Amino acid sequence: MGIEIERKFLLTSDAWRAQVVSSKRMAQGYLNDAAAVTLGTQNVSVRVRIEGDVAKLNIKSREAGPQRQEFEYDLPMADAEALLALCVGHRVEKVRHYIPQAELCWEIDEFSGTNAGLVVAELELPRLDAHFDKPEWLGLEVTDAPRYYNLMLAERPYSEWTAQEQANP
Amino acid sequence: MGIEIERKFLLTSDAWRAQVVSSKRMAQGYLNDAAAVTLGTQNVSVRVRIEGDVAKLNIKSREAGPQRQEFEYDLPMADAEALLALCVGHRVEKVRHYIPQAELCWEIDEFSGTNAGLVVAELELPRLDAHFDKPEWLGLEVTDAPRYYNLMLAERPYSEWTAQEQANP
Repeated sequence: MGIEIERKFLLTSDAWRAQVVSSKRMAQGYLNDAAAVTLGTQNVSVRVRIEGDVAKLNIKSREAGPQRQEFEYDLPMADAEALLALCVGHRVEKVRHYIPQAELCWEIDEFSGTNAGLVVAELELPRLDAHFDKPEWLGLEVTDAPRYYNLMLAERPYSEWTAQEQANP
Repeated sequence: MGIEIERKFLLTSDAWRAQVVSSKRMAQGYLNDAAAVTLGTQNVSVRVRIEGDVAKLNIKSREAGPQRQEFEYDLPMADAEALLALCVGHRVEKVRHYIPQAELCWEIDEFSGTNAGLVVAELELPRLDAHFDKPEWLGLEVTDAPRYYNLMLAERPYSEWTAQEQANP
């Protein structure tokens, strides 16, 4: 178990692409529906993710803001595939690009499938008040906007957002 | 991942106690609410269980009847305790008693806490049509009665059942 502190941002340009050091394709789904977590009948989201040839089960508490309890366990690939088939909502597909910065690492999620067109940058921080430098391609923060949660993207993908939602973080 | 085939019965007397070969105290909770599973907004239940000094995460599909997909993973004890605190509904507490019978093993769950008074016998079978001998203490089958599901007992425990529900399986 760990405490995850994560901030999420939009991007202002494609300039980040030149800084990518590695990328990984990911497919993930959720065993719970988003409503259970957003309405508070459930305290955690339970995610199944295949990253390349590795599979993981992830449990995250639903506290608002950037800080969450997080639990992660390796899964046999056959289990992950069977569990993905038991997920509800859409499968969330993306390529995650890694851009190291000092001791930290930007993760740029470039979504595909029903979320194609959406790109966000995430940064996991060691402390709530940890300092980090803002790259020139970094845009508005969306850490607290629920519709950018991957859990919500599984239920109401980017392709179903209104033009206003797509334009206005 | 495995397929679990399990049948559940009430008991007609205490005669089973003389046949118990071992017993284990268990505390468990669910990360999802029962409604999500019974209403079908979610396809699985996710259970955290501490059995003596061992802790496990268990995921079970919600198909009706005796057959389910089941996934089980060991948990670090500290994770299990943190996850139990994130569960919804009541904590289900019981002592599980084991009574071997040929290649099979009866599991008698004697509940305590908010489910005190309830005792059920479960038998896991290798095949749907597997033969098994009915012990003289075996009562009515309740495999298909949702209120006996442990998931339901976490939401609406035995102490909240009506007298008619307690009397009539």
